[in-house]
Amino acid sequence: MFKDNDFVYIDYVSKIKDTGEVIDTTIEEEAKKANIYDPEKKYKPLLVIIGEHRVLEGLEEALRNFNEGEQKEIEIPPSKAYGERDPSKVKLVSLGELKRQGINPRPNMVIRLAEGGYATVKSVSGGRVILDLNHPYAGKTIIYNVKVVKVLKDEKEKIQALVERWFGENNKMTFELTEDKKSVKFEVPKDYFLLEDLQTRKYVLAKDIITFVLPESVVSFVENYNKETFK
Amino acid sequence: MFKDNDFVYIDYVSKIKDTGEVIDTTIEEEAKKANIYDPEKKYKPLLVIIGEHRVLEGLEEALRNFNEGEQKEIEIPPSKAYGERDPSKVKLVSLGELKRQGINPRPNMVIRLAEGGYATVKSVSGGRVILDLNHPYAGKTIIYNVKVVKVLKDEKEKIQALVERWFGENNKMTFELTEDKKSVKFEVPKDYFLLEDLQTRKYVLAKDIITFVLPESVVSFVENYNKETFK
Repeated sequence: MFKDNDFVYIDYVSKIKDTGEVIDTTIEEEAKKANIYDPEKKYKPLLVIIGEHRVLEGLEEALRNFNEGEQKEIEIPPSKAYGERDPSKVKLVSLGELKRQGINPRPNMVIRLAEGGYATVKSVSGGRVILDLNHPYAGKTIIYNVKVVKVLKDEKEKIQALVERWFGENNKMTFELTEDKKSVKFEVPKDYFLLEDLQTRKYVLAKDIITFVLPESVVSFVENYNKETFK
Repeated sequence: MFKDNDFVYIDYVSKIKDTGEVIDTTIEEEAKKANIYDPEKKYKPLLVIIGEHRVLEGLEEALRNFNEGEQKEIEIPPSKAYGERDPSKVKLVSLGELKRQGINPRPNMVIRLAEGGYATVKSVSGGRVILDLNHPYAGKTIIYNVKVVKVLKDEKEKIQALVERWFGENNKMTFELTEDKKSVKFEVPKDYFLLEDLQTRKYVLAKDIITFVLPESVVSFVENYNKETFK
């Protein structure tokens, strides 16, 4: 049983219930089996913070009833997955209009709309194109085969997990947590001083630590420059 | 008499010797008199760090022989100002070529070259254009009327001057300098956390402090986040 702000790592395989099509997984072998393997992706358990709402609502709700090490198959209705299908989001547009935008539509192609968002091309005929602006998985019941592989208990471990989320697994950030847990002090390594999005990463990391781990703490980042820095 | 790493503030009016044309000044009234007043520019004494080479070589050299409060007129030969004129940098190009680049050249116009750098249009006739790639002030002797209005002695003042250089006059940066002068510690205000070029500004500020004020010090920047930061 998990509650808000618990840090759990899960492995999963998710499928469309109707068709059995595998849509996502954290496990390399499963991705290969389902022909969705992406060599650019790092297959490893996913960190879910209960209450954060970064994963499907139905998945997060179901996870509250898991225990560490437990593996279950759960079924998520559309309303708690990618939403119901909205028939009014199916639209007829002219082929000429899309071509003017540099798009040559073909059935099943996903295109980016000039007004924002994405659409799936349903059909092209007689100069008319039918576009579906619903999420491709809208209206689908999703099956998750999930295992909770690890649960973090210790604040230091949780902070470390958040550092990895924002600075990558092999980051060089170091931190100290005072015994009273009022202060988390990071030293930023020199290599990161000119990282273009360093400010954003520090911001979101501090925000996550304060939101999910130690709400009353001060999270500090220290950057020390000396003459060696500029050699 | 000034030496390397001295911080001096100067007011000046600079002119082309031949023509008397005023090219630059730190004094609003002088700018207006010479019809070069720019309402976007903040007229105030310029910080020159001796040995930094951010100003014309001849100006910096001459400043070494000033005293605080002294005002003098100095004459800078081309070689220590904008360089000698190089006749081989005057080139003939076809009008068509420039037009293809979207440029409609007229005499005295300064254009940006496709291959980088700038050029002055000398003449346009019969489909031919003469371009001068020399600096507009190349070959000119420059007259500076300079006054050293202030000299900084104290390290704290020098650091403050550098903070103003990089964070503007009304910045909210605060710092502490330890008594042994081994540590300069800045606290970055929350308002600056998402400043897009904060990392660059901290970098150049630390570099200037270490280069020109306290070479053996550690310059630290601390950013403290707490729950108020995210409200």
